[in-house]
Amino acid sequence: MNNILESIKFPGDVKKLSTKELESLGEEIREFLIEKVSKTGGHLASNLGVVDLTLSLFKAFDMEKDKLIWDVGHQSYVHKILTGRKDKFDVLRKKDGMSGFPKRNESKYDSFDTGHSSTSISAALGMARARDLKGEDYKVVSIIGDGALTGGMAFEALNDVGFKKTDMIIILNDNQMSISKNVGGISRHLGKLRMDPGYNKLKTDINSTLSTSKIGKSVVNSLSKIKDSIKQLVVPSMLFEDMGIKYLGPIDGHDIKSMIEVFNNAKEIKGPVIIHTITKKGKGYKKAEISPAQYHAVSPFDLESGEPYVSPKNSYSKAFGKALINIAKEDKDVVAITAAMPDGTGLRSFANEFPERIFDVGIAEQHAVTLAAGMACSGLKPIFAVYSTFLQRAYDQVLHDVCIQNLPVVLCLDRAGIVGEDGETHQGIMDISYLSMIPNMTIVAPKCLSEVEGVLRWAIKKGTPVAIRYPRGGDSIEGLNPCKEIELGKWEVLSKGEKVAIIATGKMVQHALKAKAILDKKDFNVTIINATFIKPLDEELLKKLSNENYNIISVEDNMKKGGLGSSIMEVLIREGYKGKFRNLGYKDEFVKQGSVDLLYKENGLDPEGIAKEALELI
Amino acid sequence: MNNILESIKFPGDVKKLSTKELESLGEEIREFLIEKVSKTGGHLASNLGVVDLTLSLFKAFDMEKDKLIWDVGHQSYVHKILTGRKDKFDVLRKKDGMSGFPKRNESKYDSFDTGHSSTSISAALGMARARDLKGEDYKVVSIIGDGALTGGMAFEALNDVGFKKTDMIIILNDNQMSISKNVGGISRHLGKLRMDPGYNKLKTDINSTLSTSKIGKSVVNSLSKIKDSIKQLVVPSMLFEDMGIKYLGPIDGHDIKSMIEVFNNAKEIKGPVIIHTITKKGKGYKKAEISPAQYHAVSPFDLESGEPYVSPKNSYSKAFGKALINIAKEDKDVVAITAAMPDGTGLRSFANEFPERIFDVGIAEQHAVTLAAGMACSGLKPIFAVYSTFLQRAYDQVLHDVCIQNLPVVLCLDRAGIVGEDGETHQGIMDISYLSMIPNMTIVAPKCLSEVEGVLRWAIKKGTPVAIRYPRGGDSIEGLNPCKEIELGKWEVLSKGEKVAIIATGKMVQHALKAKAILDKKDFNVTIINATFIKPLDEELLKKLSNENYNIISVEDNMKKGGLGSSIMEVLIREGYKGKFRNLGYKDEFVKQGSVDLLYKENGLDPEGIAKEALELI
Repeated sequence: MNNILESIKFPGDVKKLSTKELESLGEEIREFLIEKVSKTGGHLASNLGVVDLTLSLFKAFDMEKDKLIWDVGHQSYVHKILTGRKDKFDVLRKKDGMSGFPKRNESKYDSFDTGHSSTSISAALGMARARDLKGEDYKVVSIIGDGALTGGMAFEALNDVGFKKTDMIIILNDNQMSISKNVGGISRHLGKLRMDPGYNKLKTDINSTLSTSKIGKSVVNSLSKIKDSIKQLVVPSMLFEDMGIKYLGPIDGHDIKSMIEVFNNAKEIKGPVIIHTITKKGKGYKKAEISPAQYHAVSPFDLESGEPYVSPKNSYSKAFGKALINIAKEDKDVVAITAAMPDGTGLRSFANEFPERIFDVGIAEQHAVTLAAGMACSGLKPIFAVYSTFLQRAYDQVLHDVCIQNLPVVLCLDRAGIVGEDGETHQGIMDISYLSMIPNMTIVAPKCLSEVEGVLRWAIKKGTPVAIRYPRGGDSIEGLNPCKEIELGKWEVLSKGEKVAIIATGKMVQHALKAKAILDKKDFNVTIINATFIKPLDEELLKKLSNENYNIISVEDNMKKGGLGSSIMEVLIREGYKGKFRNLGYKDEFVKQGSVDLLYKENGLDPEGIAKEALELI
Repeated sequence: MNNILESIKFPGDVKKLSTKELESLGEEIREFLIEKVSKTGGHLASNLGVVDLTLSLFKAFDMEKDKLIWDVGHQSYVHKILTGRKDKFDVLRKKDGMSGFPKRNESKYDSFDTGHSSTSISAALGMARARDLKGEDYKVVSIIGDGALTGGMAFEALNDVGFKKTDMIIILNDNQMSISKNVGGISRHLGKLRMDPGYNKLKTDINSTLSTSKIGKSVVNSLSKIKDSIKQLVVPSMLFEDMGIKYLGPIDGHDIKSMIEVFNNAKEIKGPVIIHTITKKGKGYKKAEISPAQYHAVSPFDLESGEPYVSPKNSYSKAFGKALINIAKEDKDVVAITAAMPDGTGLRSFANEFPERIFDVGIAEQHAVTLAAGMACSGLKPIFAVYSTFLQRAYDQVLHDVCIQNLPVVLCLDRAGIVGEDGETHQGIMDISYLSMIPNMTIVAPKCLSEVEGVLRWAIKKGTPVAIRYPRGGDSIEGLNPCKEIELGKWEVLSKGEKVAIIATGKMVQHALKAKAILDKKDFNVTIINATFIKPLDEELLKKLSNENYNIISVEDNMKKGGLGSSIMEVLIREGYKGKFRNLGYKDEFVKQGSVDLLYKENGLDPEGIAKEALELI
C-alpha cells in the first residue's frame, strides 16, 4: 500500500496530515523500517520505538527552521525517511551510502552529528544560545533516551540549562533501556514517575483543598512559607525541577494526538522544558518488543523467523567472556564492570554466573574507570570491558585515576580497530595512540581467539594498568597457536625469513600471515613478527633488526599518528637505523562507514596491501 | 602557644579530645595554616574552610580503618596535619617535599590520589564495594565540594550509588564556590536548601498534623497513596532522594558538636547517605573570607597586607584575556566559555565587558566543548579557555563533537607545559600528544606574549578546530617580535646558522634562543626555528633540512611520546633522513611537583640542557 508514505517528500508534507493520517503513516513507516533493515542490517528496535514521537515532532515543529538534535543518533531513521532520504535505505550504512546517524553533510535537516551518547543537550543549548545572541527565532529540541541521561555530560548540560534558563525543549525518550536494560538511581526515579497516573488528579485535589482549606493550620503556614515544598507535592519530578527545568509528563510516546498537544504547549513556555515521553523500544515488531536488546542493532535477518541470515561465528567478545569466567572461578577478587553493555562486551554469561561480581554502571565510562580504580585500591582485580571508541570518554580517568597511581585495572577494549558500518564516530582506531602516551600503561593484543585467555590471565596478574585490545568479530585464519609464554615487552617471531620484517599486532598478524602466503608464492620469504605488546616495545628485537639492516613494515589497525609504527620509529631513529621503514595504519583522517574488509582494503591493511608494500621495499 | 596541636601526632590523638578541645585545636590549626602557607604558597582558602569539618570527621570516624577520599584534594592540608605530616609544611609543594594533594605513597592515611575534580564518589564506591565483597568492615567517606558536584562523573557515580544502595557516606562541603563562585542549577538548588532553617521544624509539624489530622480528606488519601510525595514535603532535597540517596542536612560546617552527632548517626544508616554541610571558604582569615577566589591558591604573601611578596608579571592568561576583548569588540559572534575558571584563564575582564557573551558552565569540561560545538553550528565563534590538564576530561568531545564535524571551535589551552608545584595531576604536558592524533585539529603556539593576539586572531579566522597552547606565567625573554604573518603550517626561521637546527615550540623558543646565546660564545652558530605550528608541520622546511643534512633537535614542553618531535620524526624517516635527531621533552613518566625551572633543568629543557644537547650533536 504505502499510500501516505509515498507522498512524503519533505517535512512540509507531514505537517499537512491529520492525526488519523499520521497514525496510518506510522504504521507504514514501521513496515518500511522492518522490511528495509531486515535486508541491510542496522538499528531497528530504537527506530521502531520513536516512529510516533518523530511524527508528532514533525507535526508540531517547523523543520524548515526549528532544529532537532537526536542524542546518539541511531534512532534517526524515521527523521531521515521524513526528510527526503527514504530512497536511500537500500544503501543504509554502506560505503558511500547513507549514514545510520545524523550527518550535517548529508542533509540540511540534520542539525548536529551524533554517535556517542549524551551530547544532545549540550549541543542544543549551544544552538539556543547562538539563536538568542544573534536575535534569531527558532526552536531547539534535543531528544534524549533515559539511557543516555545517565551519561555525566548530559547532567553537566542540564545543570547549565537550568541555571541560565535558556528557551529550549528536551524530549526524554524513556524506554527503560539503554542498549540493554537501563540501570541507576535516575532510571529508578523515572520508573516511579511512569507509575504515577494520578499525577494530574492529585494536583487538582490539592490545589482545591488548599484554597478551601480544612487543612491543619500549622501545615498551611509552613507550606505557604516554603513555596517549593508545595511544588514538590504536586510535581512528581523534583529531579528536574530542582535544577530549574520545567517538567511535563509523563505522556504516552505512542499517542500522537497527546504528544502534538503537549509539544505545542511547550513551544509557548519560557525557559527550558523537559517532556517525559514513554515509548516502547521495538514497537510494532513483536520479536523486537519482546527482546529489544537483541534487536537494538541487527545484521540482515529473516522477517519470519527473526534469525540472522549469517549466524555469528565465534567472536572476541565471546572468547573474552568465557575466559573471564574461567579466571573468576579461580580468583574471587576478579570483578567485571560494564557501561551499559553487558551483551555487546560478552559479559552476559559472567553476569549470570557471578551476579555479585558484575557492575553495570549505565552509560558512564568515566565513573566506570574511577570505580575500578577505587576497587583496585582495596584489593579487587577489576576488569572494565568497553568498546574502544567509548573509552575515549574516560581518557582523563585512565590517565589521572588509574595510571598516575599505577593501579591494577585491566581495560578490555572490544571493537578495537575498524568496526565498519557505524562509521567515523564508532571506529576503534584511536586507542593505541591515546593510551601509548600515558606513562605506566601496558598495551597488549592477542593475535587470535585462542590467545585471549592467556593474555587476560597475564594482564590480571601484572598488577599495574593493562589495556587489552581486540577487534570486532572473530578470526580470519583458523588454528593459530597461542603464544607459549607471554613475557612483558617480548614479541613473537612467527616466521623467520629474510630481507623484510613485517611487525603486526592483533588481528593484523593474521593479515600479515596471509600476506606472507602471497609473498611465498613469489619466492619472497619475509619475517613475520607478532607485536603482542604494543607498549612496551620489544626494543631488544628492534635493535637487532636495525643492526642487521632489515627493512621493516609495521601494521596496525589504528591511526598511524601516535600508533605502534610511530613508537617503533622512535626506537629506530635512536638506534641510527639505516633501512627502509613503512608504517601501515590509518592516515590522519576520520574513517567513514563501509564494511570492515572494504575499509581494510582501502587503507592497504588487507593481506594484498601488506604484500604489495613488502614487494616495494625490496 | 599551640598547646594542643603540638600533642597531635596521629589520628588517635584527635579522637581523645573533647568538643571544646577540638574547637581550640581548630583555632590553632587555622593559625598554623595561615602562617605556613603565607610562606610556601599553596591552597589556603579551601583548607581554612574545612578545619572544623576535618576535625569532626577525625573524631567521628576511625582513621586506622575507615577511609576518607578528598575530592580534588587541595583541601587535604588539615588531614595531613592530623596524620603525622605537620612537620612537612615547610616543604609543602616543593621538589621531593610534601604534596599539596593526597598521595597514597606519602601516607597510609591517604586512601586515594586526587587532583582533578569529581572523582571521589566513584573511588569511594569502588572501595565500599570491595569492602562488601571481601567481607571487611570499615566506613568509606567521600568529601566533595558543591563545585565538584557539577562535574558529570560525580553524577554518574551518584546514579550508581543510589541504584545499588551500597553503604557509604558522602559529605557535601558546600561553600557556594568552585574556585570562583559556583554556578548551575544544582548550585541554585543547594542555595534553596541553605535558606531553609525551618526544615526540621516543618518536618515535626507535618508529622504531628498528619497523625492528629484535621487535614482535608482528599489530600490525606492522595498523600497516603503516594508515599514519595510526603517525603518530598518533608525532605527538602529530592534531588538526592530521587536518586535513592538519603539526605541529611543542611548543617553548619563549623559547628563541631553537631557535625560529630550527625556523622555518628550516619554511620548507623544502611545504604548511601549524603550529608550537606555549609562551610565558609577562607574561614578564620578575614581577607580570605572576603575574597576566597583570590586566596584559593596563593603565592607566598605578607600576612598583614595580604599582598604577595613577588607581584605577578604579565602572563599569558592576561594577554589572552586582553586579546580576546580586542577581537570581540570587532566581531560580535565571538563568545567565550569557561569551566569554572573565569579568573584563572584571564577571562574576568572579558566577562565584565561582555556579560552576555561569557558562559561559565561550572566544572564541566565535557559540556563546555560540546556546547561550543553547538554554538559553532549556529554561527557563533566560540573560544573555550581551559587549563591544558583539564581538557583531558573532554578528549572525546573534542574528537567526536568538534573534530569529526570540523567545527570552528578555538581551544585556548592555558597552563600548557609544566605547571610546577601542583605536581603530576596538573602538569599540562599531554596535550600535544592527545590533540596531534585527532584529524582536522590544528595546533599552534605563540612564542611570546606579544604574539598571543595575532595567533588568536588567526585561529578564530581559520574556521576549523584550532588549539592554541601557552604556558603558565609569562616570558623569560623580553622584546621578541611577533611573527609577521601567520600562515598555516609555516614555521619561522629566527636565526640562520649552520650544522644544527633547533626546532622549538611556544615558550621553548625562548629557551632555544638562550641556548643559542650560550652556543654563540663557543662560536657555534645554530639555526633556531620557531615551530609556530605543532600541527600541521612545516614539511617543506623539514624536507629542506633533511636534504641539506642538518642535525636536528626538537624541543617541546610536552611528553616525547606522540609529541612534536615524534611528528617530526615521521616526516624525517619518510624523507630518508640521514642526520642525527634528538628529541627533547618529557620521558615516559609522570612529572612530579617542583618549581617550573627546576623541572625544566631536570628534564634537559633549560637553555643549558638544550645547548649541551646541541654540542653533543656536532
